[in-house]
Amino acid sequence: MTNHYPNDKLKIFSLNSNEPLAMEVAEQIGRPLGKSSVKRFSDGEVQINIEESIRGCDVFVIQSTSNPVNENLMELLIMLDALKRASARTINVVMPYYGYARQDRKARSREPITAKLVADLLTTAGAHRVIAIDLHAPQIQGFFNIPIDHLVAEPLLTDYFLQKGFSGDELVIVSPDHGGVTRARKMADRMKAPIAIIDKRRPRPNVAEVMSIVGKVDGKIAILIDDIIDTAGTITVAANALIESGAKEVYACCTHPVLSGPAIERIDNSKIKELVITNTIILSPDKHSDKIKQVSIANLLGNAIVRVFEEKSVSTLFD
Amino acid sequence: MTNHYPNDKLKIFSLNSNEPLAMEVAEQIGRPLGKSSVKRFSDGEVQINIEESIRGCDVFVIQSTSNPVNENLMELLIMLDALKRASARTINVVMPYYGYARQDRKARSREPITAKLVADLLTTAGAHRVIAIDLHAPQIQGFFNIPIDHLVAEPLLTDYFLQKGFSGDELVIVSPDHGGVTRARKMADRMKAPIAIIDKRRPRPNVAEVMSIVGKVDGKIAILIDDIIDTAGTITVAANALIESGAKEVYACCTHPVLSGPAIERIDNSKIKELVITNTIILSPDKHSDKIKQVSIANLLGNAIVRVFEEKSVSTLFD
Amino acid sequence: MTNHYPNDKLKIFSLNSNEPLAMEVAEQIGRPLGKSSVKRFSDGEVQINIEESIRGCDVFVIQSTSNPVNENLMELLIMLDALKRASARTINVVMPYYGYARQDRKARSREPITAKLVADLLTTAGAHRVIAIDLHAPQIQGFFNIPIDHLVAEPLLTDYFLQKGFSGDELVIVSPDHGGVTRARKMADRMKAPIAIIDKRRPRPNVAEVMSIVGKVDGKIAILIDDIIDTAGTITVAANALIESGAKEVYACCTHPVLSGPAIERIDNSKIKELVITNTIILSPDKHSDKIKQVSIANLLGNAIVRVFEEKSVSTLFD
Amino acid sequence: MTNHYPNDKLKIFSLNSNEPLAMEVAEQIGRPLGKSSVKRFSDGEVQINIEESIRGCDVFVIQSTSNPVNENLMELLIMLDALKRASARTINVVMPYYGYARQDRKARSREPITAKLVADLLTTAGAHRVIAIDLHAPQIQGFFNIPIDHLVAEPLLTDYFLQKGFSGDELVIVSPDHGGVTRARKMADRMKAPIAIIDKRRPRPNVAEVMSIVGKVDGKIAILIDDIIDTAGTITVAANALIESGAKEVYACCTHPVLSGPAIERIDNSKIKELVITNTIILSPDKHSDKIKQVSIANLLGNAIVRVFEEKSVSTLFD
Amino acid sequence: MTNHYPNDKLKIFSLNSNEPLAMEVAEQIGRPLGKSSVKRFSDGEVQINIEESIRGCDVFVIQSTSNPVNENLMELLIMLDALKRASARTINVVMPYYGYARQDRKARSREPITAKLVADLLTTAGAHRVIAIDLHAPQIQGFFNIPIDHLVAEPLLTDYFLQKGFSGDELVIVSPDHGGVTRARKMADRMKAPIAIIDKRRPRPNVAEVMSIVGKVDGKIAILIDDIIDTAGTITVAANALIESGAKEVYACCTHPVLSGPAIERIDNSKIKELVITNTIILSPDKHSDKIKQVSIANLLGNAIVRVFEEKSVSTLFD
Amino acid sequence: MTNHYPNDKLKIFSLNSNEPLAMEVAEQIGRPLGKSSVKRFSDGEVQINIEESIRGCDVFVIQSTSNPVNENLMELLIMLDALKRASARTINVVMPYYGYARQDRKARSREPITAKLVADLLTTAGAHRVIAIDLHAPQIQGFFNIPIDHLVAEPLLTDYFLQKGFSGDELVIVSPDHGGVTRARKMADRMKAPIAIIDKRRPRPNVAEVMSIVGKVDGKIAILIDDIIDTAGTITVAANALIESGAKEVYACCTHPVLSGPAIERIDNSKIKELVITNTIILSPDKHSDKIKQVSIANLLGNAIVRVFEEKSVSTLFD
Repeated sequence: MTNHYPNDKLKIFSLNSNEPLAMEVAEQIGRPLGKSSVKRFSDGEVQINIEESIRGCDVFVIQSTSNPVNENLMELLIMLDALKRASARTINVVMPYYGYARQDRKARSREPITAKLVADLLTTAGAHRVIAIDLHAPQIQGFFNIPIDHLVAEPLLTDYFLQKGFSGDELVIVSPDHGGVTRARKMADRMKAPIAIIDKRRPRPNVAEVMSIVGKVDGKIAILIDDIIDTAGTITVAANALIESGAKEVYACCTHPVLSGPAIERIDNSKIKELVITNTIILSPDKHSDKIKQVSIANLLGNAIVRVFEEKSVSTLFD
Repeated sequence: MTNHYPNDKLKIFSLNSNEPLAMEVAEQIGRPLGKSSVKRFSDGEVQINIEESIRGCDVFVIQSTSNPVNENLMELLIMLDALKRASARTINVVMPYYGYARQDRKARSREPITAKLVADLLTTAGAHRVIAIDLHAPQIQGFFNIPIDHLVAEPLLTDYFLQKGFSGDELVIVSPDHGGVTRARKMADRMKAPIAIIDKRRPRPNVAEVMSIVGKVDGKIAILIDDIIDTAGTITVAANALIESGAKEVYACCTHPVLSGPAIERIDNSKIKELVITNTIILSPDKHSDKIKQVSIANLLGNAIVRVFEEKSVSTLFD
Repeated sequence: MTNHYPNDKLKIFSLNSNEPLAMEVAEQIGRPLGKSSVKRFSDGEVQINIEESIRGCDVFVIQSTSNPVNENLMELLIMLDALKRASARTINVVMPYYGYARQDRKARSREPITAKLVADLLTTAGAHRVIAIDLHAPQIQGFFNIPIDHLVAEPLLTDYFLQKGFSGDELVIVSPDHGGVTRARKMADRMKAPIAIIDKRRPRPNVAEVMSIVGKVDGKIAILIDDIIDTAGTITVAANALIESGAKEVYACCTHPVLSGPAIERIDNSKIKELVITNTIILSPDKHSDKIKQVSIANLLGNAIVRVFEEKSVSTLFD
Repeated sequence: MTNHYPNDKLKIFSLNSNEPLAMEVAEQIGRPLGKSSVKRFSDGEVQINIEESIRGCDVFVIQSTSNPVNENLMELLIMLDALKRASARTINVVMPYYGYARQDRKARSREPITAKLVADLLTTAGAHRVIAIDLHAPQIQGFFNIPIDHLVAEPLLTDYFLQKGFSGDELVIVSPDHGGVTRARKMADRMKAPIAIIDKRRPRPNVAEVMSIVGKVDGKIAILIDDIIDTAGTITVAANALIESGAKEVYACCTHPVLSGPAIERIDNSKIKELVITNTIILSPDKHSDKIKQVSIANLLGNAIVRVFEEKSVSTLFD
Repeated sequence: MTNHYPNDKLKIFSLNSNEPLAMEVAEQIGRPLGKSSVKRFSDGEVQINIEESIRGCDVFVIQSTSNPVNENLMELLIMLDALKRASARTINVVMPYYGYARQDRKARSREPITAKLVADLLTTAGAHRVIAIDLHAPQIQGFFNIPIDHLVAEPLLTDYFLQKGFSGDELVIVSPDHGGVTRARKMADRMKAPIAIIDKRRPRPNVAEVMSIVGKVDGKIAILIDDIIDTAGTITVAANALIESGAKEVYACCTHPVLSGPAIERIDNSKIKELVITNTIILSPDKHSDKIKQVSIANLLGNAIVRVFEEKSVSTLFD
Repeated sequence: MTNHYPNDKLKIFSLNSNEPLAMEVAEQIGRPLGKSSVKRFSDGEVQINIEESIRGCDVFVIQSTSNPVNENLMELLIMLDALKRASARTINVVMPYYGYARQDRKARSREPITAKLVADLLTTAGAHRVIAIDLHAPQIQGFFNIPIDHLVAEPLLTDYFLQKGFSGDELVIVSPDHGGVTRARKMADRMKAPIAIIDKRRPRPNVAEVMSIVGKVDGKIAILIDDIIDTAGTITVAANALIESGAKEVYACCTHPVLSGPAIERIDNSKIKELVITNTIILSPDKHSDKIKQVSIANLLGNAIVRVFEEKSVSTLFD
């Protein structure tokens, strides 16, 4: 790996959740990844060895807390403890995907707010800063009292569709649920397109959900946008409903491709023509689908890391 | 005032932001308000005297941090400090309106997250629990590590319209912006009505905003719902647009009637037929409008306080 | 399940690591286990529902952080967050087995002290007290600033051998390594027996380890004692060496049967006649061996929980 | 504004309480004030925009928490939150006047100690250091666990009188109350003058206060010194009593000119010949009196800021 | 010892600094002192054994941090750690004398504020509340964020002189320094007497201090009052100066008889007729002087402890 | 003293426990000791003056908390408070001997864990890092959440014996108790020698302890090794038992020569031929014995301080 970045106080470490992304980021910056090993003992306990001195350095640890989320989160916390005790100058956590982000409020009695717990655990373990991308709710920034650099991947997704020549009234940007309308509106602004909303509701308890579409989709190319696609149930049902309502074609996109359980199968069987995702979460080989197109956020992360290290404004990256 | 609640370890104090509500709550519970005075010195500093022992008591302090928000918040923080030093057993902050709630994330670079700061200030000053109503974002619960009892006033507003006999397809529940669709959907479910969204966007920078309506409103009675109505610009423009688009009548409702600046004048001059609000914020005499109808949350708060004091589940209040 | 304990402010919850033990403890106390469900979402995130009010209660959560340690630990932390936000009066963590206990110091440069990290995470998440058994190092008590009730299972193991009629100079209690001599001496005192130590050393770097036995074992019944048996390498090699050195028979015992990887196979193939363990960690069905005898610590835990709840001294349990 | 200080990692920001002083300080140092806007929304909430990057900088925020104290304090706390989240290297709070300083102890039961609360709020919001002038009680330094640089303005006031040629036994330095004798003694030392004390007492409850003078004032020029003059009741009554007791002339001075309520009228109507103050608090136009002379502390603050930034000893400024 | 107080959840422990006072307090309340031993190992380390269960109890630990202050303070901190780990419900520190109280501010550059450090150490070690008497500066209350019950011994001293028939204008209450005038005024109010101040100053650096008396003392009985008498230099020089200035007789009193170094000899050789002290600090046998009269604060402390335990207002004790 | 180290941001201060060692360390580094005075007031309170600016410096404070442990510890804590308030950049505590290290766990009910309390007190007072040598239990590192650089003196002791030509099977390294076997094994490895253990036990309560030796010592040179020798009871009895069991000669060594009470007399009267110690604790003149040989750890500490200051890896010092 190249090593042309001139300051060796900048250290980048990768844990196990998304090593290809970490390597791409390191390559882009021009620093080798820090030497470490993160293994499991026979009984499942995490064993971490940091194999070079990081005393007085600004350390960036890249780890998505994607599935297996608890393994990846504990790896990260233990790494932070090791860095703290090894006298790092600053410990910067780069979380392309922030697991448990959807548990961000008490929706029912006696629920945890696990996204806040994660913030507290990171701070307790020693984090001084977090770099994150498209947090499920922007309020998660307020779960921390350390600085968060919150990057936005949506322009990368939008650019993909702009390059296809999509634009204006032939399009409609669709939010797959009531909570995502603001996100859809932002993409629609860039593409000069109108919006629509998938409106699911349950007429009475114990009665099947009814889905309707608020807004006009007939004859248009519809692009569904979400931050996270998990089991892909909502998005594929929405896609099919859009086609039934007269949409010409349906595309979908998201920042974080969780794609758990039946997701790939549902996408393959759905009316979605293409699903555009980023690489905040690694796609395991069994998650292959010809419909999936991936755009990389390595460049975005690399720039952010360098600007943080050099104490330059990061906001230029998402304005 | 009556005094029929049998346990004098329960103490309720009112500060200056909404004393009528506090008195109504105390009356409903059957406990006199605690004796205290909260005044200003000649130079504007807050002077607090707690005039009865609260040692070993469970104290509930009722204060909305409405306008003047900084005065009301500092009153509250100073009261908490006094209660902490006076050996209260638990200090429970009852905030019918949580000021600064809309500053809940960094929307631009170098912004504060004042809603989180407020949470930290309350905890630092000595709060053990917060009872709040319709927080602008439910994630604000996660800004705290102390228990929050989060009450919901929307059913009171819905009941008002149900009692008018409104229901079903003759109605449409309208979100005045992209972020409020979930709230509109919840009200629509109870009223078995469809939804619509006011879709404002700016085609290009430095060009006037364009407003359109996503969803069908022609011939229907439209009810606009929001959590907070502040200057009433959005809601009154929306109301007029709904009438222009063919709505028969337009009603509006919200939990927190901030109603600052030109709000009353705008409402009076708008197509809104009635504006239904609660009393989380006191309406000063200059904020009179014949269109405004108020429903009280005193009963809801009183029940919550008693259930917290008696260590019973509060969730039954909003299920 | 019976319900004869008279105070329903005492709540006992089980998570997923060792439910049979939790049920045995609850049965012994005479309280039903609290109603809750702890599941996984499709993407692996932990989902917790506490299905009864615990407001104002003293809650005891039983969870061993055995394999899968990260899953079990995160379950526990998330449960603590939920209990804290649901207004439990006190949150008492019952950890029959404390995972990561062996990572209790920096043995080499830039290592984490994960056992301390776990203590900090538990406290951050909301624990008020920990009840633990045979912590790998007693100093782990000092990793906490909350009270620890530290129970001792060794007398249960000793009793097992006393009931066989073993005693005195026909016996020798053997520590399998240099760090366990104090533990061996304690058992030897109760059995009026001498001790010996397995002395492993590496004459030069990159040369095979040499094992010798310090102390007399010839003609005696040897009992190997350790707190944790993990892969069983050390203990089985020790057993064979004891037989070679003339021991008549070799028994082994430990509190925490981690038994990972090749452990069962090694034990079956070794000279160990019986391995006596407790049930701090559940034995999965694939860990069956006829040589293994299990004694239950449910009674010890049940008594500790009741005494803590009733604010009685726990020390009588291990004097 | 000039910009000749060579290091742009030094950033000075002004909030709204005393912008002329902040500009004078910035001018003196040779750095432009940082670009920011601090406004109010229509409902009174503070809105802060920091309009230049401060990442990695040492930021000094100048704000007196004078009247309106709660507005000014909240502005400051919110600014600190913004700076913290925007990755300032250090956040230094320059408070020429520290509001609530007189609430520094519990004088009666169940009072707050608001001066301590303010210290805790500042620390919670993100302050790393405070630069203050003539704190009402020097013990307020101990309310903080962050470094305080405590400057002294009394020499500036003394110099004013020395330049008039006042000195020695023709003078008497008078403390207006029992708590200010140490301050009077310090000024008297520099002016080689004797001291006297205004001795107010209430012979019995519900009887008018009696004022007498302890010490000799007959035929002398009396200078009353206090740290804060608020409503000017004490100081003007004292001045008149001094004249009645034979003093030739009476001057008064203080560091912090709060001058609330009837202060200006009382001073104009009193026997005080001149009142010498500093500019820690801005004098609003309605507080004009020909008797008032102002000396500037801008030079003192400017030197302190530069020395802190350059890590030089500040003590030379007040020795 | 008697045992008539009916609730055994109230536990009182004495450490080694003032056991006679602790026994008198316990006797007055009617509870035996808790069983414990506080010894020294051969190398000087403190060894504490608490010999009865205090689980769930409200524990009051009586310890003055008088000379040897560091020994007494460490005894106290270690006791707090033991109580915290032994599951006390609340830990209440009763400090009749608060050592290091005079180090309450930075008087010069790079000084510690040891009185604040002590407050932080007590809180870190586990204190939930402090009961103190006549803190050197009342602002020390603000060094804590836990409740302080601050008792006042001055009325006991005043009563002593009132019982002698002293009163009115034949008397003068004298502050021995500039900082103690408020204290003198308070005593003077109760005795309807005027005040005077000993005014020491140094005309120029390296020149001997000059002492004068501000106020009239000729022909009067003078009572010097201070909170602490340490080496007795100030008070004895003041007494002699008062006699020289025509005072008929001079008495002295203080709450805290530190009386270190030459204090007893100075008092014996001075013009002081009687020195009235309390028993917050034990008088070692070598500190005998016929001039010293002692009044006990045991009753005051006993009442405070009982009222705190019973959650009654303590303010009635000093009103 | 020399002053050839080129960076004056490195400041080394000595307190009173071991000034000769501090001077040796400073000499070795080439920096003068920082100017300060640490005295006692007449009443025993510690008085600290730091007499040079340390603003922005990396300060290293050298203090062993040996006898008088409470005096030395309080000196250290007060110094830390002063350094924190004087704006040191980092505060590094160098504790060659860590007092109270043996109180590292609850051995019986209701005991403190004073070694943890000390860690908390140091952190509260302001320490950012600790440099320590041969902590009694390595787990004490986990009592801190700040970095610890843990140095090892055992190689210095071993080298002493290697230089005598001792090696191999003519030797036996003996642990004087069950807990020290690991330490003995480490020394034995370097000297290619076997080990033995002194096995003390009490057959029944109230019966005299019985001592036996596990392992072969007949005809060998025995070296007893411990980390701390306090009253020297254990080690001298062990030495005599070794001679009785046929050992040719007995040597002893330890890192920390506490040597309290009868230690010197016991050593002089024992069969120990030489006792080798380091200078972590100063030997007072009354602790003279011809048998004692001292090796210095000044070089080790000096290297560690420089490497920490220069942000280089310290691990090379003990590999």
